[in-house]
Amino acid sequence: MPQPPAAPDTRTVLDLGERALVERITAKLGSRPWVLVGPGDDAAVVTPEPRTADVLTTDALVDGVHFDLRLMSPEDVGHRALAVNLSDLAAMGARPRCALLSLVLPSSTTIEFVDRFLDGILRLAASEGVAVAGGNVTRSPGTLVIDVTAVGAVHPRRVLRRSGARAGDDVYVTGTLGDGATGLASLRRSREDAGARRAPVAEVRYRRPEARTRAGHLLSRNKAASACIDLSDGLGDGLRRLAEASGAGMTIDAGLLPVREEVRTWAALQSQSGASDARGWLELALDGGDDYELLFTASPRARGRLRGVQRLLGDLPITRIGQVTKDRGLRLLVDGDARPMPGGFEHFR
Amino acid sequence: MPQPPAAPDTRTVLDLGERALVERITAKLGSRPWVLVGPGDDAAVVTPEPRTADVLTTDALVDGVHFDLRLMSPEDVGHRALAVNLSDLAAMGARPRCALLSLVLPSSTTIEFVDRFLDGILRLAASEGVAVAGGNVTRSPGTLVIDVTAVGAVHPRRVLRRSGARAGDDVYVTGTLGDGATGLASLRRSREDAGARRAPVAEVRYRRPEARTRAGHLLSRNKAASACIDLSDGLGDGLRRLAEASGAGMTIDAGLLPVREEVRTWAALQSQSGASDARGWLELALDGGDDYELLFTASPRARGRLRGVQRLLGDLPITRIGQVTKDRGLRLLVDGDARPMPGGFEHFR
Repeated sequence: MPQPPAAPDTRTVLDLGERALVERITAKLGSRPWVLVGPGDDAAVVTPEPRTADVLTTDALVDGVHFDLRLMSPEDVGHRALAVNLSDLAAMGARPRCALLSLVLPSSTTIEFVDRFLDGILRLAASEGVAVAGGNVTRSPGTLVIDVTAVGAVHPRRVLRRSGARAGDDVYVTGTLGDGATGLASLRRSREDAGARRAPVAEVRYRRPEARTRAGHLLSRNKAASACIDLSDGLGDGLRRLAEASGAGMTIDAGLLPVREEVRTWAALQSQSGASDARGWLELALDGGDDYELLFTASPRARGRLRGVQRLLGDLPITRIGQVTKDRGLRLLVDGDARPMPGGFEHFR
Repeated sequence: MPQPPAAPDTRTVLDLGERALVERITAKLGSRPWVLVGPGDDAAVVTPEPRTADVLTTDALVDGVHFDLRLMSPEDVGHRALAVNLSDLAAMGARPRCALLSLVLPSSTTIEFVDRFLDGILRLAASEGVAVAGGNVTRSPGTLVIDVTAVGAVHPRRVLRRSGARAGDDVYVTGTLGDGATGLASLRRSREDAGARRAPVAEVRYRRPEARTRAGHLLSRNKAASACIDLSDGLGDGLRRLAEASGAGMTIDAGLLPVREEVRTWAALQSQSGASDARGWLELALDGGDDYELLFTASPRARGRLRGVQRLLGDLPITRIGQVTKDRGLRLLVDGDARPMPGGFEHFR
């Protein structure tokens, strides 16, 4: 007879206590052959991949800043906490190998939240071949913070830096733009008005961002990209950082931006309905953020290698959106008309 | 003419903005030859040391839980944030190589705090040969959290695990016990009563814990230890974890515990004065926490190698405090009388 699903565990981390909580988490973590010492010791020990360098990144999700549990599930939060870090590794051309999980939890955090959050992070870890090799749990007097450190491997001469873009290179982006911001706006709108028109694909893209691990690795391996960055704070921000690091400028053609029909339609409807926070599709694509696509540049001589990458990637589109220029300006072509690139996103502002 | 010291920067991180804050922090970070890509890209890239495994650990300091800025300076907090992680590396026998710094800051955090905190962490990093190779800054709606990830290197066959203690091994501890808890209590008391008797050495030991990096590395290199753990939550907690991981018991002789005279005197005076929270020296040593010494076991056959380690360590004492037993009990000998080891520390409790 099938077992009925277990009732959610409504105890809090305070009820359970630190040691039992750590044991509960540790019991769920799997392992990988390269993890010599996993959770439960003073630190994790991992055998490096031969002939590679370690790639290290850390990114924190803060409750009320990076996620809102009224709009996403604990599983979504777990997925996102790892995905944003894997996205950083992908942007360096690295394949992910392991992660550390640092949880700062208010005493009122339920065991159900911890369990579901872990399900989200471990499902993504399994599908990406990542071992959660260790971490730390501590109490918070207020804010819930989830800090993930991800470690990957890349051949030292295949690192994708931000600084390699050269005048004449083409500018490319993976996937589609504006989905993250549209998804978040759609989720918010649907909470205010249950009958509101929704953007379902964009919502999933917001709730479960996919790191472009394979694209990053192939671009690195095939020497197809001259510079690369991941888009977390919007295309405009990514272009600015890439241009600054490379000491170059960029001209982007708005007409080339890969924006899905759902996003264009949704933006148009919001604007028609006179919503006070309505943004056009171009603004969503440029400044929306939360897209986690790769923005990269490639020399025209690398076009053949890039076609090879595209073939191996299959469905994930790579779109040329503009060109690197010698003068340092960032320009946006709208219907052939060049204007300065609009602003960016800042924390603390 | 000597420059007058710069006035503290009373602007907040909100005044400065995220990008300028990250640039200010990045400008202070040095580098090391093994850091291929440092701060300012999507992730850090670090060349592994030949023939070693990576050792990875993360530990968060939470304002109001792990530190109190009325009792310690921002420099102390920075020092501690790195030291507690280096202590975990030392417990594995690893030498530290780099660290990532994840800052979760309320908008009201002053630039002065950030500057002084960084001074503390970077001074320790420099003296330990550690590169702060990357990190992340984000906003907090409430709690200030500092999460450090430290990466070290150890020969894969020289890893000091918690699980290697065998019946008949001797139990050792580096340094002195009870200093951390005494230092914290002394700092608290002095805030209530400016004329209170203080424990000055213990206060420094609390404010600036030293990771036993060299001791851990030498114990690993010389194959002198069978198991090792660092003491962050007290000797009792460390013994319990080591015994559990090794499937063994331990008998500790209270008379052998290395407790400095200042701690014994201070504890006796508190007790005489009838302070409600007074603890005896034994309780401070067993359950005080914040000592960051190494607790390790060694086979009697390794005594020669251990003497070699002691010679190389110079001033840092290594003290035999008991023995590993076959039956799994944890016992404390007080004046020849065996009793069960008293309890431990739990977060969330």
